[in-house]
Amino acid sequence: MPKPNSRHPSFPIPGGPDLRAKGWRQEALLRLLENVLSVGEDPDNLVVYAALGKAARNWAAHKAIVETLTTMHEDQTLLIQSGKPVGLMKTHAKAPLVIMANCNIVGQWAKAEYFYELERKGLICWGGLTAGAWQYIGSQGVIQGTYEIFMRIAERRFGGDLAGRFILTAGLGGMGGAQPLAGRMAGAAILCIDIDPERAAKRKAIGYLDEIAPDLDAALAMIDAAVKERRAISIGLVGNAAALYPEIYQRGIVPDIVTDQTSAHDLVYGYVPKGMDLATVKSLRKDGQGQLMAASRASIVDHVHAMLDFQTAGSEVFDNGNLIRTQAREGGVANAFDIPIFTEAYLRPLFARAIGPFRWMALSGEASDIARIDDLLVEMFPDNKIITNWVRLARENIPFEGLPARIAWLGHGERTALALKVNALVAKGELAGPIAFSRDHLDAGAMAHPNIMTERMKDGSDAIADWPLLDAMMLCSSMADLVVVHSGGGGYAGYMTSCGVTVVADGTAEAEERLDNALTNDTALGVIRYADAGYDEALDEVERKGVPHIKLG
Amino acid sequence: MPKPNSRHPSFPIPGGPDLRAKGWRQEALLRLLENVLSVGEDPDNLVVYAALGKAARNWAAHKAIVETLTTMHEDQTLLIQSGKPVGLMKTHAKAPLVIMANCNIVGQWAKAEYFYELERKGLICWGGLTAGAWQYIGSQGVIQGTYEIFMRIAERRFGGDLAGRFILTAGLGGMGGAQPLAGRMAGAAILCIDIDPERAAKRKAIGYLDEIAPDLDAALAMIDAAVKERRAISIGLVGNAAALYPEIYQRGIVPDIVTDQTSAHDLVYGYVPKGMDLATVKSLRKDGQGQLMAASRASIVDHVHAMLDFQTAGSEVFDNGNLIRTQAREGGVANAFDIPIFTEAYLRPLFARAIGPFRWMALSGEASDIARIDDLLVEMFPDNKIITNWVRLARENIPFEGLPARIAWLGHGERTALALKVNALVAKGELAGPIAFSRDHLDAGAMAHPNIMTERMKDGSDAIADWPLLDAMMLCSSMADLVVVHSGGGGYAGYMTSCGVTVVADGTAEAEERLDNALTNDTALGVIRYADAGYDEALDEVERKGVPHIKLG
Ligand SMILES: NC(=O)c1ccc[n+]([C@@H]2O[C@H](COP(=O)([O-])OP(=O)(O)OC[C@H]3O[C@@H](n4cnc5c(N)ncnc54)[C@H](O)[C@@H]3O)[C@@H](O)[C@H]2O)c1
Ligand SMILES: NC(=O)c1ccc[n+]([C@@H]2O[C@H](COP(=O)([O-])OP(=O)(O)OC[C@H]3O[C@@H](n4cnc5c(N)ncnc54)[C@H](O)[C@@H]3O)[C@@H](O)[C@H]2O)c1
Repeated sequence: MPKPNSRHPSFPIPGGPDLRAKGWRQEALLRLLENVLSVGEDPDNLVVYAALGKAARNWAAHKAIVETLTTMHEDQTLLIQSGKPVGLMKTHAKAPLVIMANCNIVGQWAKAEYFYELERKGLICWGGLTAGAWQYIGSQGVIQGTYEIFMRIAERRFGGDLAGRFILTAGLGGMGGAQPLAGRMAGAAILCIDIDPERAAKRKAIGYLDEIAPDLDAALAMIDAAVKERRAISIGLVGNAAALYPEIYQRGIVPDIVTDQTSAHDLVYGYVPKGMDLATVKSLRKDGQGQLMAASRASIVDHVHAMLDFQTAGSEVFDNGNLIRTQAREGGVANAFDIPIFTEAYLRPLFARAIGPFRWMALSGEASDIARIDDLLVEMFPDNKIITNWVRLARENIPFEGLPARIAWLGHGERTALALKVNALVAKGELAGPIAFSRDHLDAGAMAHPNIMTERMKDGSDAIADWPLLDAMMLCSSMADLVVVHSGGGGYAGYMTSCGVTVVADGTAEAEERLDNALTNDTALGVIRYADAGYDEALDEVERKGVPHIKLG
Repeated sequence: MPKPNSRHPSFPIPGGPDLRAKGWRQEALLRLLENVLSVGEDPDNLVVYAALGKAARNWAAHKAIVETLTTMHEDQTLLIQSGKPVGLMKTHAKAPLVIMANCNIVGQWAKAEYFYELERKGLICWGGLTAGAWQYIGSQGVIQGTYEIFMRIAERRFGGDLAGRFILTAGLGGMGGAQPLAGRMAGAAILCIDIDPERAAKRKAIGYLDEIAPDLDAALAMIDAAVKERRAISIGLVGNAAALYPEIYQRGIVPDIVTDQTSAHDLVYGYVPKGMDLATVKSLRKDGQGQLMAASRASIVDHVHAMLDFQTAGSEVFDNGNLIRTQAREGGVANAFDIPIFTEAYLRPLFARAIGPFRWMALSGEASDIARIDDLLVEMFPDNKIITNWVRLARENIPFEGLPARIAWLGHGERTALALKVNALVAKGELAGPIAFSRDHLDAGAMAHPNIMTERMKDGSDAIADWPLLDAMMLCSSMADLVVVHSGGGGYAGYMTSCGVTVVADGTAEAEERLDNALTNDTALGVIRYADAGYDEALDEVERKGVPHIKLG
């Protein structure tokens, strides 16, 4: 079953027609777990991405999960508490197979330091968004998001086009590594800084980076040349963004777009303070966490000051979801929130219609299954420019990592319609195997994240976490196969709660029912969340699509 | 349908054989909602207890809930977000009818001030534990808990008996009002202080208080006489506990037991600072919240200093779940936590076996239904002293409030066994109507509350909130009729998360399946939570009862 394209020889990509579990639903979840490790950043430590986002608590937990998935029946439910399986309950065939609650901490205790303490004691693990929920599909998951942001900016400020435009960013990790490709796909000249030469090399090796520049002068020269020729290019540069951003600014260079995707959310395991080498940082992670947190915070202050300077000078500057503004504000940068968050600045009108990053994975391991669904997608939504444009670009530019997968921003009704057609294809044997459907946690009804997803909601409901919890409870009641509630770990501790869901299209009539119920209710709740907050797009969606929203008289 | 015994003429107690909803499941939830208002402290403002614990967000929300419960079908699920109905989803017949998420706030924002702000904007409401979940059954719910605590102390320190012992406490509100009765039932002489003469008068009127003393001298003389004669008595006294506790201490009087159940958790809407009259407090609640919080905090500091003095002098002093130690510690009383919490001090061995306050309500409104179940209970558990003793006492001493109801501390397997027998009685027509089963949120698998329920857990997992969330998701997957996740509001904001569940025994085969699945899984998870934390009682329970716990090798 191992495939040659796995990045980690000991974590082969699953695939093929043979079941190890008692049914495809169970087998599917097992393959998805295998998949997040095979495409993860550090699978030997169960880390999938974002410094500490893990697929399971530890190897004993992993083993017990695999054993349970292999042996459990369809009317049972496996309970997972922060990456550790704790019980296998008798439920019924319409109940989820797997339910997870990861990294949820009572509010007053939900702080980075307390999280690290629990982590050290082995009592908790952070699931990131899609890591612990076994839904991560490699960089592709985030590429479209980043690409759509760039295109929204292009429309708004640059006449619809980023040719001849300079994007400055940093972070080439599990998620941030998508930036050079997204920037190039958007037509820009993009410069990506990372302190870790290995991360840069990895992104060069898969072709996301065209070049790694030897130093800043060379990097800026390459960018400059590309900008003049209106040529799309992605350049990597090894260095510390907190040092390089100010230096670029001091040279009087004003990029068109500036952002950042270092792991600024985590002052211990994520961010590297300027002036420190990686080896020092690694040793401080073990026995100097306090010192490291202070140094990271101080560095982020400079980092964000430079971003604010660029903003004043005219760059389009935004926070791409790494809590860098929050960290800076806590470090004393009172105006850090002058930098907008990408969700509110560019994507809210989409979320208000529950349009968000939907995704599917070919459990067969066959790329042809995704190609067939790509065709279907274009057939079904010929007038949806976001979709048709994206499918064309993705086919051309995006190599599969792990199980072949695709992501596309679809909304209420659309997701269900696609999934039902795909299930019919599976039933007819037109695909090589079942397909698993999932979505990002960054979805309309699924996330409370006041400094990222729900910043400045119209009604002021930013920090109300009832919605993701309702979503999770509702999905458990709507025949989903896997349902999770994740809260933030590391530096995200106390900053967010989200809900994730996976449903398997195995071609059966039961799967049809499941997909229909779970996916429809999930997006309906997304629309309801925004309708309740007073967004016109959502109220329109309620009207047009008959979303079962209760509006008080 | 109105009954004469309702305390509030406009909030009649439901009952009778006639359905207004499309089925008994829906009708049951409707009656439970009516019931919490009919026994609530301030139903005109939808307040059930604990200063701000509400049954619904506002009257428009209440109306829409009632309408929906009346018209919804069995395969639909009503979603309620902090007391407001937001959607009516198509689900299936094994899904809950009602799902609620109340007052959940992202960690870093989960603070009293932010809660009040959201409350003022009408964006949130606190459900208490059982208030917003429509499960409150009047003071009875808490009487057994308080009584069991007194009896545990009696066993441990006073030779099994509280005759001739003096209990000093305060707070005669919705919950605290149970104290005089519980104390008297335990055989003690109990003195209960409340600042509000109306609250005291109310507890006198229903017979929980034997007398209201005109002043401290008279009160102490009555207690003294009763103690000498080893006579059980309950005395009320109007005054401020923060002034009176120190005064009693200064007189050299050392009660045998000291606790407190003022609403100390809420510095604005609950606690009354010493030296302030009620009118001043009420006006400051509107426009001087900051000042009021500071005054309440200062008063609690004196209040807790006196409790600590009593402790040093030899009294058995405990915190009865109102966060008074936490408030005092924040006010500078470094050793406030020398006072133990009742859960850890007295009840943890019960919780470790998932034994906790289970309850049932006669939806017919007929007291005879409860009497029949009392008999059944004694038949089924003849050797369980806690049960047989309690049923006898409760029958003699506890007047029903609202729908006739009973509470009893039952554990894994026991709850299910009782509920199935009751369902069979309903089926055979031996009861006047269906019975609703529920439990307190203060239950083994259902609550994370690091300063109350989960303080000093053996493994240090006090603040991990995964368990109540798993519980809620699992119950949605286990055919429960109503499932809720509540987090703290007011001064409890950021201090807790809990899960509540209700299942209706309407005599059908489906109800049998529901009761069996939901109640069994619920207590199983309770056992698992304590087994995972390393408690011997729980590990023993896993062994003896075959609880489906996954233990890592
Ligand atoms: N849009 C979103 O909502 C969204 C989506 C995914 C990830 N994120 C966030 O984006 C951030 C990055 O995620 P990831 O999975 O790529 O994390 P990662 O830990 O895999 O990668 C972070 C990278 O930043 C580099 N880095 C750290 N400090 C640096 C510094 N001072 N200068 C230059 N490089 C530095 C590291 O070497 C590493 O390569 C995280 O905070 C993550 O949570 C946001
Ligand atoms: N054991 C448990 O876990 C448990 C169960 C239920 C309630 N509680 C807690 O117990 C507390 C009381 O609950 P409740 O429902 O009775 O609240 P409530 O608001 O109905 O009553 C509180 C009473 O305290 C009185 N009071 C306030 N400040 C006072 C002072 N300084 N001196 C004397 N009296 C004062 C008020 O007049 C009122 O009668 C709350 O904090 C509640 O959350 C704990």
